[in-house]
Amino acid sequence: MRLFAKVLRRGDFLGARIDTALPERQPLPRPDLRQIKIGVGPVAVFGASNFPLAFSTAGGDTASALAAGCSVVVKAHSGHMATADFVAQAIERAVEKSNMPNGVFNMIYGNGVGEPLVKHPLIQAVGFTGSLRGGRALCDMAAARPQPIPVFAEMSSINPMLMLPEALKNRGEKIAQDLADSVVLGCGQFCTNPGLILGIKSAEFTQLISNLTEIMGAKPAQTMLNAGTLKSYTAGLEHLTEHQGIKHLAGNTQKGNQAQPQLFKADVELLLAGDQLLQEEIFGPTTVIIEVEDKAQLIQALQSMNGQLTATLIADETDLTEFADVVPVLEEKAGRLLINGYPTGVEVCDAMVHGGPYPATSDARGTSVGTLAIDRYLRPVCYQNYPQSLLPEALKDSNPLQVLRLVNGEMTKEAI
Amino acid sequence: MRLFAKVLRRGDFLGARIDTALPERQPLPRPDLRQIKIGVGPVAVFGASNFPLAFSTAGGDTASALAAGCSVVVKAHSGHMATADFVAQAIERAVEKSNMPNGVFNMIYGNGVGEPLVKHPLIQAVGFTGSLRGGRALCDMAAARPQPIPVFAEMSSINPMLMLPEALKNRGEKIAQDLADSVVLGCGQFCTNPGLILGIKSAEFTQLISNLTEIMGAKPAQTMLNAGTLKSYTAGLEHLTEHQGIKHLAGNTQKGNQAQPQLFKADVELLLAGDQLLQEEIFGPTTVIIEVEDKAQLIQALQSMNGQLTATLIADETDLTEFADVVPVLEEKAGRLLINGYPTGVEVCDAMVHGGPYPATSDARGTSVGTLAIDRYLRPVCYQNYPQSLLPEALKDSNPLQVLRLVNGEMTKEAI
Repeated sequence: MRLFAKVLRRGDFLGARIDTALPERQPLPRPDLRQIKIGVGPVAVFGASNFPLAFSTAGGDTASALAAGCSVVVKAHSGHMATADFVAQAIERAVEKSNMPNGVFNMIYGNGVGEPLVKHPLIQAVGFTGSLRGGRALCDMAAARPQPIPVFAEMSSINPMLMLPEALKNRGEKIAQDLADSVVLGCGQFCTNPGLILGIKSAEFTQLISNLTEIMGAKPAQTMLNAGTLKSYTAGLEHLTEHQGIKHLAGNTQKGNQAQPQLFKADVELLLAGDQLLQEEIFGPTTVIIEVEDKAQLIQALQSMNGQLTATLIADETDLTEFADVVPVLEEKAGRLLINGYPTGVEVCDAMVHGGPYPATSDARGTSVGTLAIDRYLRPVCYQNYPQSLLPEALKDSNPLQVLRLVNGEMTKEAI
Repeated sequence: MRLFAKVLRRGDFLGARIDTALPERQPLPRPDLRQIKIGVGPVAVFGASNFPLAFSTAGGDTASALAAGCSVVVKAHSGHMATADFVAQAIERAVEKSNMPNGVFNMIYGNGVGEPLVKHPLIQAVGFTGSLRGGRALCDMAAARPQPIPVFAEMSSINPMLMLPEALKNRGEKIAQDLADSVVLGCGQFCTNPGLILGIKSAEFTQLISNLTEIMGAKPAQTMLNAGTLKSYTAGLEHLTEHQGIKHLAGNTQKGNQAQPQLFKADVELLLAGDQLLQEEIFGPTTVIIEVEDKAQLIQALQSMNGQLTATLIADETDLTEFADVVPVLEEKAGRLLINGYPTGVEVCDAMVHGGPYPATSDARGTSVGTLAIDRYLRPVCYQNYPQSLLPEALKDSNPLQVLRLVNGEMTKEAI
């Protein structure tokens, strides 16, 4: 919320553009044209099941919509309605304290309220974080409205990590340790959990698999956020276990009230053949390893993958030279590309992209984390020949807000 | 095309953002994060029926997609395939001359090719200019794909013009003349043709109607772009003529090979009741006048309208003071707001918005004319902890492209 307050003060989200009149131009004069972005209108936000305090009610979706000047209706996630209510009450108090209009923030609860919310004629956009099935259903609903509306749904990502040879040679043990920690972090309930580990056949990669098997097998069971999530996790594990081409490497049998960390190994042919199971996110502390023959097959495997939130290279200097041509493939597949990091930390800042090609999100042109998230809820308006008195502040000649503007093709904060 | 070349040189479309590493930050260090925008992938462009030379093959859709780094497949409009071919050949020569890769620009022809084009898995976005029915069909198709893709369809707008009292008093005759010229300009085949004229009951407005009736009645028949357009125009006029609440004021009976300019008057109650006929664009040299009781009814009438490309006030100084509260209503309804101009001139520049709420377009967050059009085909990518050698030029510390970047929250062209 504070970061968006900074964005508002900075004013660059307004995208102010001014083309001044050219009354003498031949063959036709140019009128005075000025553009800024305004909010699209009321936004429906679907609370995520994860991060009940940080993202669900008052996260990037709500903060960016409010910052864009849109009122918000949040549908509380059924997994933590009391937490959602506490956060909503805090927002309500802030609305009152800062004299914002009533109704700028609203929260609704219950099963079956999502559909009428998305279909309500006043709602102009939707933000969603959750499952592929849920997100796609909302997209289809929004597209079928008499007036279709945009949906930004952050849905499903398996966040491939590529383990390159030199790095494995130099620090294979540490990598196995850090990777396992990332997989079980927050009981694996990060949207950016590493769900697929790719490496090239070699003694070092075999060693990594063996290290990971040992470490993952020793990881304790963890408590998930709610019963629904545990049920989905159990079902996901069953699908992996039952699959012919997938081998279980480590982890206690899944039962009881906690999630057991698991490690699987799959045949690369499954990925190349487009097997859906390997493309689907299993929300929880589990991951799948795949061994490829060589760089050519690695690139083939990447190309056969769906869109992702993140894609990571674990690489040392010679790896980066030798595998530089992997980067353009990763750019096509993911919204955030990491080198020598683990995707589970999502920094809230200007440069963050928490988005990516379908099915990671429903629209790769947005992000739900970071200041660019505001763009999802803005639309441009152009004022032609408007007198100073009727222009928005950001477009007045004197530039009273001191925002950066594109004036006749030059970026400047100067008055006109 | 030249304007987009300027945008590319300026580099602000890249939206470069850098948050440098904070290794000492507590409780967790911040990694180095850098963001730019890249093309979404191949774009399908549907040629418009109007502006065969200026917009259809090499207009804002094609130019902005190419500028974004996307390859383009244009579907030639069936109304002017030879013209489309000539323009395409010119583009092909330019592609060859500038050593761009083969296949960066492609054109296809024929009936029934649009659907497989939109459904082709490699196509990542669609640009369309045409009818509401055609645009909506493409949107529905794109939304139903296994991987849904964004569509920017510029479809239907009746571009309301409000005639305010003081302006009519001071210069009613000139207004009638200019308005009639705008209605018949280009045989009424502008997307921004004034299709609805609103005024408050008064002697001056009655005089305007009488002047307009005389001038429009004397306007000669004009040749339309093609037979299909003339057929649609004839059908549109029939619907207006047959409607009980609509009166024909001027214009010769529509027949033969040319379009006869026409003037109609409709009851405000039709608009308030949401009659669809008054919301639909009739592409050609015709317009509908509506008289309202007072300002309150004027605002009600505006609120009952669909989204528009433009909304215009013809107003003198006292009008602007008295009717200032109409502006926020217009902002909600249209992408471009004019005062004392006619919407039929669409300037190609940075500040232009040729877009607007549905059904003017399928997504109010874009524009098909002006440099902001490029944003429709860009998506952000974030690089985390990437070494200088693998970063795109725009994100390297030294800023070799000299682009404006948001570095740790400050806009600057400085190197890091």
